[in-house]
Amino acid sequence: MLSVEQTEMLTRVGPGTPMGDLLRRYWTPILLQEELPEPDCPPVRVRIFCEDLVAFRDSEGRLGLVEELCAHRQTSLFFGRNEEGGLRCAYHGWKYDVAGNCIDMPTESPESNFKDKVKLISYEVRDGGGLIWAYLGPREFMPPELPQFRFMDVPEEHRLHTKYLRECNFAQAIDGGIDSVHTNFLHAGLDRYRKTDAYKERIKGSTDLDLLYRTADDAPKFMTKRTDYGLLVGARRNLEAENKYYWRFNHFLMPFYSMTPRGGGGHAFVPIDDYNCWSFNLSSKVDRPYTEEERERQLAGIAMDHDLAGGVNMHGGLIPGTYRTVRNRDNDFLIDRTMQKEVNFTGLAGTGIQDSMAQVTMGAIANRTREHLGVTDIAIIQARRLMLGQAIDLQEGIEPAEPHTPEAYSVVGVQFVEEKDVTFDECIERQRPRLYAELGS
Amino acid sequence: MLSVEQTEMLTRVGPGTPMGDLLRRYWTPILLQEELPEPDCPPVRVRIFCEDLVAFRDSEGRLGLVEELCAHRQTSLFFGRNEEGGLRCAYHGWKYDVAGNCIDMPTESPESNFKDKVKLISYEVRDGGGLIWAYLGPREFMPPELPQFRFMDVPEEHRLHTKYLRECNFAQAIDGGIDSVHTNFLHAGLDRYRKTDAYKERIKGSTDLDLLYRTADDAPKFMTKRTDYGLLVGARRNLEAENKYYWRFNHFLMPFYSMTPRGGGGHAFVPIDDYNCWSFNLSSKVDRPYTEEERERQLAGIAMDHDLAGGVNMHGGLIPGTYRTVRNRDNDFLIDRTMQKEVNFTGLAGTGIQDSMAQVTMGAIANRTREHLGVTDIAIIQARRLMLGQAIDLQEGIEPAEPHTPEAYSVVGVQFVEEKDVTFDECIERQRPRLYAELGS
Amino acid sequence: MLSVEQTEMLTRVGPGTPMGDLLRRYWTPILLQEELPEPDCPPVRVRIFCEDLVAFRDSEGRLGLVEELCAHRQTSLFFGRNEEGGLRCAYHGWKYDVAGNCIDMPTESPESNFKDKVKLISYEVRDGGGLIWAYLGPREFMPPELPQFRFMDVPEEHRLHTKYLRECNFAQAIDGGIDSVHTNFLHAGLDRYRKTDAYKERIKGSTDLDLLYRTADDAPKFMTKRTDYGLLVGARRNLEAENKYYWRFNHFLMPFYSMTPRGGGGHAFVPIDDYNCWSFNLSSKVDRPYTEEERERQLAGIAMDHDLAGGVNMHGGLIPGTYRTVRNRDNDFLIDRTMQKEVNFTGLAGTGIQDSMAQVTMGAIANRTREHLGVTDIAIIQARRLMLGQAIDLQEGIEPAEPHTPEAYSVVGVQFVEEKDVTFDECIERQRPRLYAELGS
Repeated sequence: MLSVEQTEMLTRVGPGTPMGDLLRRYWTPILLQEELPEPDCPPVRVRIFCEDLVAFRDSEGRLGLVEELCAHRQTSLFFGRNEEGGLRCAYHGWKYDVAGNCIDMPTESPESNFKDKVKLISYEVRDGGGLIWAYLGPREFMPPELPQFRFMDVPEEHRLHTKYLRECNFAQAIDGGIDSVHTNFLHAGLDRYRKTDAYKERIKGSTDLDLLYRTADDAPKFMTKRTDYGLLVGARRNLEAENKYYWRFNHFLMPFYSMTPRGGGGHAFVPIDDYNCWSFNLSSKVDRPYTEEERERQLAGIAMDHDLAGGVNMHGGLIPGTYRTVRNRDNDFLIDRTMQKEVNFTGLAGTGIQDSMAQVTMGAIANRTREHLGVTDIAIIQARRLMLGQAIDLQEGIEPAEPHTPEAYSVVGVQFVEEKDVTFDECIERQRPRLYAELGS
Repeated sequence: MLSVEQTEMLTRVGPGTPMGDLLRRYWTPILLQEELPEPDCPPVRVRIFCEDLVAFRDSEGRLGLVEELCAHRQTSLFFGRNEEGGLRCAYHGWKYDVAGNCIDMPTESPESNFKDKVKLISYEVRDGGGLIWAYLGPREFMPPELPQFRFMDVPEEHRLHTKYLRECNFAQAIDGGIDSVHTNFLHAGLDRYRKTDAYKERIKGSTDLDLLYRTADDAPKFMTKRTDYGLLVGARRNLEAENKYYWRFNHFLMPFYSMTPRGGGGHAFVPIDDYNCWSFNLSSKVDRPYTEEERERQLAGIAMDHDLAGGVNMHGGLIPGTYRTVRNRDNDFLIDRTMQKEVNFTGLAGTGIQDSMAQVTMGAIANRTREHLGVTDIAIIQARRLMLGQAIDLQEGIEPAEPHTPEAYSVVGVQFVEEKDVTFDECIERQRPRLYAELGS
Repeated sequence: MLSVEQTEMLTRVGPGTPMGDLLRRYWTPILLQEELPEPDCPPVRVRIFCEDLVAFRDSEGRLGLVEELCAHRQTSLFFGRNEEGGLRCAYHGWKYDVAGNCIDMPTESPESNFKDKVKLISYEVRDGGGLIWAYLGPREFMPPELPQFRFMDVPEEHRLHTKYLRECNFAQAIDGGIDSVHTNFLHAGLDRYRKTDAYKERIKGSTDLDLLYRTADDAPKFMTKRTDYGLLVGARRNLEAENKYYWRFNHFLMPFYSMTPRGGGGHAFVPIDDYNCWSFNLSSKVDRPYTEEERERQLAGIAMDHDLAGGVNMHGGLIPGTYRTVRNRDNDFLIDRTMQKEVNFTGLAGTGIQDSMAQVTMGAIANRTREHLGVTDIAIIQARRLMLGQAIDLQEGIEPAEPHTPEAYSVVGVQFVEEKDVTFDECIERQRPRLYAELGS
């Protein structure tokens, strides 16, 4: 549990809050590249860290991120015209470049220098790895490079990113991203389902450790190691029959990423404001492009290979024109009580919606004073300490190191089986080549 | 009128409020039995007295009512799996019995005793008379028995309960339940309608006193008598032509029931929170089951025998999957201005919707400092005094007596015609056998 | 820009606020006459200056405007029955006349004088010029006459009024009504569109100054003159080719009207509350009725003669049963990004929706501390000063003069071309006959 004060510090991200200040020291993914696909495409609203902004790509492909409202009379620049070299407010035609400079002010006489005095708040923006990134902190602390996730350098066809709205504070999403023990219930099929012929046929001959061993031990032992990106989280499950341990190494990467041992994938849980975040699902393959089928399944919201209900729609897709899932808190995620009786614990298909249910129903900001954390929550406790510690440090002038170790972010999750006498530290050493190597499909 | 302070005391029902404390001394109907029909059926959200809870019926049919959020990490147990002997949270599998005890905590090692330290807030729940009842107060003051309404003991087929959401504070609904003079307008047809052949044909030969005499006198004289369940309310109408009095005896039963002289029916107006309540419509017949036609009409929301517009839909039915009426404040109850010109005073069909309109349009909590109460409001004044008095008493340690006189709740409403020289007290004596007798159809 | 305090004073209109007090000194258009078309028609909710009221027209055609809730027990009189000589509450039948007097109280005995003590808050209401007007201020300051706009005296068929909801504070709408320079962008076609054959064909041989010259100069010079209705606003555009000036005279009439030089039309921006206003579009022709086609186009929301996209729907019509446009802030006014690329600056068709976008996206109350006002904003600055000045004066007991110069309101907007050496004051003299003359079609 956290105190009220700790929860406040952990969850509030607006300008001037301790956590808001900390998050602003990092490059932040704000959009999928598809949202600003080409020069002079329509501008996009960006609400991030409680700030209302507009992003656009100008005629030369440069990215801009500026305050939403025109400096003249406060009309929204989301409705502006993105035209030759800038974004023009539709009310009186004031025009801004990507740096927020007013570059045309037709309402003034040509000799006026009024426009030189007008500048929008603007932030640095960059393309990278299929995402659009922004830096909202003080310029003097801006890390020169984006974090070097593996997906940053692969060809476009090797990547498969999606995003959707999660209607709760980002810290609840982070908790879920770290806490791999929940896969034993939230994402798992019922015993009765696992005993069906259909299921047995499905896993027959499989070498997928996740499928075979994830639910072998409901009380995995958690261990963490502080790294230069955040935390390496080891979860050790006892394989009774084989007298071995099944290990999963997840990662928490400051300030809101998690990497799981499945398909080289990770998540970024980016705060929109105190009550909402984006869940970016980041996937890539080093050695080959995604197949058309994989891509279609993912974009349609179908879990790729471990959805126990088999081929079902993960989130029922997105509400057209939005990144909000059709299945959401307003409709109880369309829970299927028969599925909950017969197939899995949730009555929900798809890990994304299962995660949303678990996190969103806590309330927009969970009341952590009511929590009862157990032994499987120690990685969460560590991650919270890390975040709160950095936020406090920053208030005292101590800058976080992680924004300046971009190369550390190339780590991936792994899973493996080891003899029981191999320690956590020894496992890390043995896995080091995989943790930091290129990722095969 | 009431002062601001009195209104606050009357209407606020959350934990720790004077009225909230008082209400928690009583057994409270929280659900229709149909909402938890069988062992291991889906759990149901229950918001009552501003508390967010989940009700469920376990594998052995026992009822549970516990706080909504799991003690572990605050995921909603509404999404939990109701399975062998308890409700299991879908996030990490913590499982609770009907008493709120954590009976399985798979994330801890078998030898851990952590689960013994975890307990959800839970309340006593019981089946009774087609309803599900809860007691939300301190255990030491829990009345041993449920109130003995007449419908409690009749066979299931003799009962016909419905409920719907009323989007205002419960005290406004109580006022309406007591105030029988409003039937002269809110539920009455226009003179012009009463003069139609269709209407005359309809009441021809009728012996229904309500139909014949209710609107004979718009200014009935009200009298009240304090009883061991609350108030007996007598409304006396002058029958000019016959030189007699037409009497109606309604009842206000603490803390939120009313019984009317029609069909042995009554209402419970149960606070969801300060701004919403459930209107339970409770009907039963001692001597026979409801016919299929009666049942269909009632469930379809059709007023059973005194809807002046004749066979119309009372509330347009419920929005599927909810207990909210299709006709509600958001659509002005679909008022029909032509009906209001030609047929009745409201342009609304069905007493339920008429009552909702009258009560809900006052605002979520009516501003009682603006009221002008007249002679027909004296029963309301008495009932408010009774409630406020008990609330104040309780703050001073004086427990209410009513929760402990369950047998008093078997009273029913009656109507009759008497000679003018029979006093109120004499009428009560004469009606005593009917007031407390078994109810014929 | 304005300070926070000035913005508060300018925008808050509830009872007891300085601006609210000032507005209440004026007769205010509250409804279209079509909303209360005949005696005993259904009553209408009127929210104006943050007050919730009900308007009705009694059996003799008299208008009433009274507080919404019945004095008895606070049920809404919007649901009342408008019947012989008054509005009867549907709950217990209390009945009120247009002056708010309780004229029937059937729940009291005939000899009771309780009803003489009950009176609703009520305001003076009048028909005039196709509108329904109310005076919400102190009776002793009530102007004897309605403002004498030109449309007040023309036959009904010569008028064409509409209204719709604008979801922002009225002061933003006033700014837009005064600020004619925005027509160069917000309401203008792109150069690329103006070069199309279709457009050239359209304006061929036109003598419409607006069409020909409006966009000839993006930085018009603004001048204002204090008048006995408010401000005459002159905007002077340089016509380079012809070595002349194109002038437009708009008017700001206290406290929320604007008159433009197009079709004798004007606007009233009437505060509903601090966050919403009605935009009344007021049009009339002195010399002839509107044609059927003109009427249909206007009522369908089609801009009459200068919609650059040609014959398109101005606002997509109104949501049935409301005066809210289908295209509104909730759907980003259904912006068409292709139209914005190819045709005009906004991607929106119709001046009404263009204005709404510009004003509403500022937020419900624009943050005027962030504005940067330029030379084309001087009329706005003057108008704000005028309003704030009158509001401050009134707090000090100095009554505004404008409510008592109704004849001054007959002014109209004009446009014309003049030699460069004719001064603003000379222009006013020359235009005086047109400014105050009858308006031809």
